Amino acid sequence: MNSLRIPRTIYWVGGLDGAVELIDQTLLPTEVKYLVCRDVETLREAIVNLRVRGAPAIGVAAGMGVVLGVRGATDHASFFENLALVCDRLAGSRPTAVNLFWALDRMRRRAEALRHLRLDELKQSLLAEANAIRDEDAATCRAIGEAGARLIRDGMGVLTHCNAGSLATAELGTALAVLYVAHEQGRRFQVYADETRPLLQGARLTAWELSQAGIEVTVICDSMAAQVMRAGRIGLVITGADRIAANGDAANKIGTYGLAVVAAAHQVPFYVAAPRSTFDLTIPDGSAIPIELRSEDEIRKGFGRVTVPDEARCYNPAFDVTPAGLIRGIVTERGIIDPVTPGRISKVFAE
Amino acid sequence: MNSLRIPRTIYWVGGLDGAVELIDQTLLPTEVKYLVCRDVETLREAIVNLRVRGAPAIGVAAGMGVVLGVRGATDHASFFENLALVCDRLAGSRPTAVNLFWALDRMRRRAEALRHLRLDELKQSLLAEANAIRDEDAATCRAIGEAGARLIRDGMGVLTHCNAGSLATAELGTALAVLYVAHEQGRRFQVYADETRPLLQGARLTAWELSQAGIEVTVICDSMAAQVMRAGRIGLVITGADRIAANGDAANKIGTYGLAVVAAAHQVPFYVAAPRSTFDLTIPDGSAIPIELRSEDEIRKGFGRVTVPDEARCYNPAFDVTPAGLIRGIVTERGIIDPVTPGRISKVFAE
Repeated sequence: MNSLRIPRTIYWVGGLDGAVELIDQTLLPTEVKYLVCRDVETLREAIVNLRVRGAPAIGVAAGMGVVLGVRGATDHASFFENLALVCDRLAGSRPTAVNLFWALDRMRRRAEALRHLRLDELKQSLLAEANAIRDEDAATCRAIGEAGARLIRDGMGVLTHCNAGSLATAELGTALAVLYVAHEQGRRFQVYADETRPLLQGARLTAWELSQAGIEVTVICDSMAAQVMRAGRIGLVITGADRIAANGDAANKIGTYGLAVVAAAHQVPFYVAAPRSTFDLTIPDGSAIPIELRSEDEIRKGFGRVTVPDEARCYNPAFDVTPAGLIRGIVTERGIIDPVTPGRISKVFAE
Repeated sequence: MNSLRIPRTIYWVGGLDGAVELIDQTLLPTEVKYLVCRDVETLREAIVNLRVRGAPAIGVAAGMGVVLGVRGATDHASFFENLALVCDRLAGSRPTAVNLFWALDRMRRRAEALRHLRLDELKQSLLAEANAIRDEDAATCRAIGEAGARLIRDGMGVLTHCNAGSLATAELGTALAVLYVAHEQGRRFQVYADETRPLLQGARLTAWELSQAGIEVTVICDSMAAQVMRAGRIGLVITGADRIAANGDAANKIGTYGLAVVAAAHQVPFYVAAPRSTFDLTIPDGSAIPIELRSEDEIRKGFGRVTVPDEARCYNPAFDVTPAGLIRGIVTERGIIDPVTPGRISKVFAE
């Protein structure tokens, strides 16, 4: 068994008078610096400017941010007033982050349910709730890793895209949890990380956290994946997902769909790893998932240097949708959905 | 008919006492600056540091560089001594550039053949030869464009990769020549340019020269091509080639192969445009084409900023090979090879 060295992405330090500490991901991989957030505005700025990112990690941040917002209250009235204010304030930090709203709602409901408690007990309970959000996410990541680890064979080359790792979650990540647990179990394998333009999460974050954990990683440009597969270096592709429809169509970082097409052409199995909370069973298939368009500047001046002429436009879709037919299996905290069919998916939710 | 505005990539100004002027491509797209080369070392530095790049343009540079190297000779002995020196010196500037060696060899053979001439006539003849290399390449580009223009239909979306344009050649380019001539003929279409990591020739060069010519261009990250095709925006893909085997397998900038795979999956026809000089009929198929590995730093610190942690490796193949089976047709100065079969290819050389 290898021991794992995983960065602590976000956590609460101390008691009710403590603080949120989070690794500033905008400085990675060249600088490892923890940001200490003692007030809501510092935390909010960290979310807005992607110092903390990844849907589950943002959920944890939101939960802890609520505690920062209410701990100064001097009576029940100001507590609930502050609660409403901080939830409003944080809800506007990343408008499309589902986990953000989910966590704020959970904290609010918890407070309402415990309204009868003494003020200090109420505050302590909300801190416990925020820590529970973190711990539950960590447990979910671990379960995903345990469920998927058997996919990784000794000597295998594994390709991943973007960052579905510890930096996106409370602990082990989703796609990378599978690799971490396989590593813990003593398997040796080689990871290829797509750099993931435009924001380079693969190069900056995935390569960094895998290296920290002692897993060998090689960064390639996104356009090199097909060549690397053709050379026989890849036995499996695994990515995270942002949203999965009832039929298994999966939205994820732009480039995932093209990777799945290329994997299919090379008979390389393509897996998605995601918790059940990523499924949206209210949408029948991927055509109902809107594709967010982001700023042209992420392409035009992505490296602090202008690389596209003013006269040209840029087109910057942030996500794409991989059809279920290209996905061999979806690794969840309740096991692997394989084959990816509506029936198998609903079974994971029935248990 | 639209008139074309094409940048002058490299040309000789004045008579034998003149100079080579070339657009410094490392400064594009933010600065348009011509570098004046009056001596071999200035020109050599420009080739080494990719101020001039693209196989045909490097061939032109080499031819003109020979003139710079011999024009100061005071007698036949020093002329031929200088000729040998400059050829050696320039041959080391880009060790894998076939057109470079071809142009140097052509200049040397021309000088040998004209050995009987007076010194000033000999020098003038070599200048004429260098200009002929440029003019012949310009004519070849024009012929490729004329042959391929009919592929571009009104309202079409056309995707290209890297820069196979005027900046890589003496005039219209290869893949982009097809677009320039279609534009001249009055067709309206939308070009999508892959930014082409790691060196961003698509974003920096292709987007710039198409914009200068008045052709609408949208830059995307390489990983977005599949999504753009799936959205139905692309009617045709066209790229250049660095080397084509006897069976039609084509080596080109890394990412071309993946693009061809993705195009096939979306039933988008994939074309290559290249002069006959790009074919190497001595190699039966693409497996004999070596893939050059370039410096990790092109990925690790592509834009003056480190984006990959020290502990991680980078893998940087500069080219990939697209099998003939994925190529709908090859546009040459003698017409379109379609379908791409050894028989059709040898026919283009038999005429």
